[in-house]
Amino acid sequence: MENQPSRENQPAKAPTTPYYDIVIVGAGPVGLMLSTCLARWGYRIKHIDNRAEPTPTGRADGIQPRSLDLLRNMGLKTAIMAHKPARVYEVAFWDPPRSGKGIARTGTWASCPSFIDARYPFTTLLHQGHIERVFISDLEKHGVQIQRPWTITGFKSDDKANPEYPVEVNLEHTDGTMRETVYAKYLFSGEGARSFVREQLKIGVTHKDPIAHVWGVMDAVVKTDFPDIKMKCTIHSEHGSIMVIPREDNMVRLYIQIASSTDDDWNPRKTATEEEVQASAKRILSPYSIEWERVEWYSVYPIGQGISEKYTLDHRVFLGGDACHTHSPKAGQGMNTAFLDASNLAWKIHAVEAGLADRALLTTYEPERKEVAENLLAFDNKYAKLFSQRPPAANEVQAASEQTGSQEEDNDFVKTFKESCEFTSGYGVAYKPNALNWSLDHTAKSPLVHPKGTRLRTGRGMINANVTRVVDANVVHLEQEIPLNGSFRIYVFAGKPSTTAKALEDFAVHLNNKRSFFGSYLRSDIDSVSHHESHNPHSLFFTFCTVFAAARKEIEISRDLPGLLGRYRDHVYADDRWDRRVPDAKAAAHAKMGLDEEKGGVVVVRPDGYVGVVAALVEGSGTVDALNEYFGAFCTKKLGETVSRL
Amino acid sequence: MENQPSRENQPAKAPTTPYYDIVIVGAGPVGLMLSTCLARWGYRIKHIDNRAEPTPTGRADGIQPRSLDLLRNMGLKTAIMAHKPARVYEVAFWDPPRSGKGIARTGTWASCPSFIDARYPFTTLLHQGHIERVFISDLEKHGVQIQRPWTITGFKSDDKANPEYPVEVNLEHTDGTMRETVYAKYLFSGEGARSFVREQLKIGVTHKDPIAHVWGVMDAVVKTDFPDIKMKCTIHSEHGSIMVIPREDNMVRLYIQIASSTDDDWNPRKTATEEEVQASAKRILSPYSIEWERVEWYSVYPIGQGISEKYTLDHRVFLGGDACHTHSPKAGQGMNTAFLDASNLAWKIHAVEAGLADRALLTTYEPERKEVAENLLAFDNKYAKLFSQRPPAANEVQAASEQTGSQEEDNDFVKTFKESCEFTSGYGVAYKPNALNWSLDHTAKSPLVHPKGTRLRTGRGMINANVTRVVDANVVHLEQEIPLNGSFRIYVFAGKPSTTAKALEDFAVHLNNKRSFFGSYLRSDIDSVSHHESHNPHSLFFTFCTVFAAARKEIEISRDLPGLLGRYRDHVYADDRWDRRVPDAKAAAHAKMGLDEEKGGVVVVRPDGYVGVVAALVEGSGTVDALNEYFGAFCTKKLGETVSRL
Repeated sequence: MENQPSRENQPAKAPTTPYYDIVIVGAGPVGLMLSTCLARWGYRIKHIDNRAEPTPTGRADGIQPRSLDLLRNMGLKTAIMAHKPARVYEVAFWDPPRSGKGIARTGTWASCPSFIDARYPFTTLLHQGHIERVFISDLEKHGVQIQRPWTITGFKSDDKANPEYPVEVNLEHTDGTMRETVYAKYLFSGEGARSFVREQLKIGVTHKDPIAHVWGVMDAVVKTDFPDIKMKCTIHSEHGSIMVIPREDNMVRLYIQIASSTDDDWNPRKTATEEEVQASAKRILSPYSIEWERVEWYSVYPIGQGISEKYTLDHRVFLGGDACHTHSPKAGQGMNTAFLDASNLAWKIHAVEAGLADRALLTTYEPERKEVAENLLAFDNKYAKLFSQRPPAANEVQAASEQTGSQEEDNDFVKTFKESCEFTSGYGVAYKPNALNWSLDHTAKSPLVHPKGTRLRTGRGMINANVTRVVDANVVHLEQEIPLNGSFRIYVFAGKPSTTAKALEDFAVHLNNKRSFFGSYLRSDIDSVSHHESHNPHSLFFTFCTVFAAARKEIEISRDLPGLLGRYRDHVYADDRWDRRVPDAKAAAHAKMGLDEEKGGVVVVRPDGYVGVVAALVEGSGTVDALNEYFGAFCTKKLGETVSRL
Repeated sequence: MENQPSRENQPAKAPTTPYYDIVIVGAGPVGLMLSTCLARWGYRIKHIDNRAEPTPTGRADGIQPRSLDLLRNMGLKTAIMAHKPARVYEVAFWDPPRSGKGIARTGTWASCPSFIDARYPFTTLLHQGHIERVFISDLEKHGVQIQRPWTITGFKSDDKANPEYPVEVNLEHTDGTMRETVYAKYLFSGEGARSFVREQLKIGVTHKDPIAHVWGVMDAVVKTDFPDIKMKCTIHSEHGSIMVIPREDNMVRLYIQIASSTDDDWNPRKTATEEEVQASAKRILSPYSIEWERVEWYSVYPIGQGISEKYTLDHRVFLGGDACHTHSPKAGQGMNTAFLDASNLAWKIHAVEAGLADRALLTTYEPERKEVAENLLAFDNKYAKLFSQRPPAANEVQAASEQTGSQEEDNDFVKTFKESCEFTSGYGVAYKPNALNWSLDHTAKSPLVHPKGTRLRTGRGMINANVTRVVDANVVHLEQEIPLNGSFRIYVFAGKPSTTAKALEDFAVHLNNKRSFFGSYLRSDIDSVSHHESHNPHSLFFTFCTVFAAARKEIEISRDLPGLLGRYRDHVYADDRWDRRVPDAKAAAHAKMGLDEEKGGVVVVRPDGYVGVVAALVEGSGTVDALNEYFGAFCTKKLGETVSRL
């Protein structure tokens, strides 16, 4: 990421060791994502892990389409894809044939069908250790080293005794030779399912589905004539069931269910040797042959669905990732949910600590993320049942895959299919209306909010669109143009320049008002900001993009934009690219967002990429007034004339 | 690149130092490309450079669209793009306005307009040192270290005295402290314009255009309100002319012509200070302001057009890159031409040394590459004149940009424009008919050659097409599926499976004939090749791809392909992706190639990616007979019944 401004509100003389902004326990996906975000934004981090090195083998390794968007937004996607992960575009289903023995393919199913507008319509499969190392290398660039192998032995949180660094944390080397006590503003547990922090806080775990399983998992290089060995497959046979997941470097992962609490002889300690699992796989895959050339990893583990009752008690000590939710590995959701837990929390901590938001903003972490975890667990069940009941008919899958927004009534199967695809792709994450995600209920105060026709859904990701950047004529992905820099992303869809000239001018004038959300949170070093700063020349909390419904060559930044928006010259775009999803639109990005191609509209996207509010772009103060109301709901200062608070 | 087989014909006990397959002098783009190819294919290389380290600043740095295809094919594109190079999509022209002073934009021009079917329709601009280091790092993985700073002091070539290692080369450390004499099969000069090897061979340099120039070039970070500073611009003003080229990291390169041999006071030693060039740039850009924040590199150098009369005298000592051709830097062609010189020579050396081709194959290097250099020099002139005469009218540029193959008569300007775009993008490189690139003249012997309707042009790059890989349902770029592995790429467009079943079966039967081009060049270790070898399970010289005009789920590899082609299971594709260029085609890849969607056809692509021959796919022996004739023209063995020789 370029020109990442360091945090401004850091005290001039920050206390040195043992004082930290945050202590992060656990360097798996959730801990690393949180650490990476906060390190980039200038926070002081103590990050420990009780393992001597990153995950050496096995472990969760499915990156969903939506997570790739996030990783790209952080500039980490290239380093991950350099490992040449396997890409799963389709899932195949194999069952006993109607007549005869063995197994037969009964259907295939796109991982991310075309009704989902995904940049990367596939699941990426790669060893978790490679993914962890990409984060660790980025952390090192920002001065953070994971302290290994260290563990947490105790902590207490007391706002009154030490208002600035209320959390005392006791750490110890795993061999017991060294100890440390540190003080922090926050403590985060990314420890996994057996979280010491969660236990200490006496936070219970609810088991959504009473059924538990013992799974065997084997990563190996095999020689086989099974034709779908490079696809994700669910195989049911008279000899048992198996799940096949392709991996990088010609590897394949096999999941075999060894025991279930629904078995008559259920024993959660039941196990199976590597050879037993291989023999079982041979029987299941018959008449196809399979031989093992090399086994990289083999493990047997019991797993049950669980969800943490709370994600925090005091909004100082937080939990995330597997510490909050465990489930079967089949849908490949673990790492993705962990990433989103962390990115959700990261920007909120930043907004509070850097001085934009009230501390109350932190109360939105648990409800937003816990609901996603609950949906994940519900989905985990449904996903399993969907196929145990009956395989989908080919025409149902076809119909569901090809629909791209038609209004026809879907049957139950197609509905479940679509929900499942949205869910597994990561595009189904939808935060409910709250202070950050404005529903129509908020429109009472400003009729400009959520203008009629918009297809953007608050609490969901920004819709993808290609546009042409005016300064260099580069064709770019609009939704990726602002990196994950902790700022709100304000997209001004400016329609036709001739129509909106006055509205744009008024928008800038009212932004410049000292009581606007923008004018209230300018950088203190605004006069010495580099000419080359693209994203945050005025404020660390807001980055503006302007998108005209015009051809690139018709746009002149110095003429068509007020100075304030023109300062974001690297973020001015022409909506002049054809898009197959709106083939007849004159301005495809406007059309995809459902915004008027003449009059435009303003979209506020949260720092984590979810749409917060959509407002009409009008002459006068209305548009800025509406955004003042939005930001006024959670920011620290009184804006404009409004008094709405969280 | 995966599964790169090492060279098979290497003697069991290769002689150790001082014996090498090749000595390469110079580690600029041409030397590095040659070294990288040959190192991957298992050759023993002595590579020296007289600089202590890779290019630290400045130098040629434009990578054209077609070169990105090549770099991607080598698996090096990602590492280059990780440096975040500037991307030039359009060129802007600035001239004195019709009335008033200063400069005004008179037009823009796409770098690679849509009539060119490019995967990457932009020019990539990056510091040459970054590009060199990507190659050097790849070389190190294959055991080659550049020996620095060493220089060549003498060489002689004598086939009779030492038939196996006929070239004796004397090397010396630049400080004169160490000397070495080595023996090699080949010597390559990638030394640049002042080539010691060329001088020793007394090969003259022809100056195509007698006009010489002195150029000033400055790489800098500037602060300016000139709106096109991130575009490639040609600026003419009453105060002189300048060329602007954006770079990575907010840098910009400015080229200023300081003197021309057409000036009255021409002096090739004329120079200008950094300050003088800056003052000149200020006047030219007026009324826009420009200030220099940091100058990374500044240099003044005289340049004239020159072309080496010969590229080799004995087909043992070769020249390439700037040692063969010098020209103005304006069109950004230097590095790209160097890459293609090297990749052209690399596979031919490999084909000869590994035992596929007659030594006479090496005689095709000079004519193929020298013609390209001559076209480059001619273009260099035309390109300059095109704009000195008159700026293009907007509607002319528009018309030329948007045509995608219409049959209308182009006017001269549009014609020149198109040729220029093809040339600068790299898609204009076209090798003339010869033993490798079969024109219609060759059809006398087989009426199946160059079937009617094909849009593939021999001597040009393979046409791009998206297809779905059958084994894993991945959507892939067909033309990239076989890496630069030294093999000929044989694409079997298999049309409809039901129509071509017999033709495919016959194709395999006749390939299996011991006298076919394929049967004659099997691997000696064919029985011990790994199950996971994707590209070369049978022969190091041929990789097969099969593309059906059918949906992926309709294709069953074990049923629809003969065993020989089925063994290339990672290279079986469904031609089921929609393409905007052939929106109504049922099988877009077949349609783009101009091959029958029912009956298909076979395309042979040279190891460097250029189409060699296209043949109809028919029942009986005809198709293999035609390919036998093709390969028989240059290979070492007598094939089939034919006796045609080079």
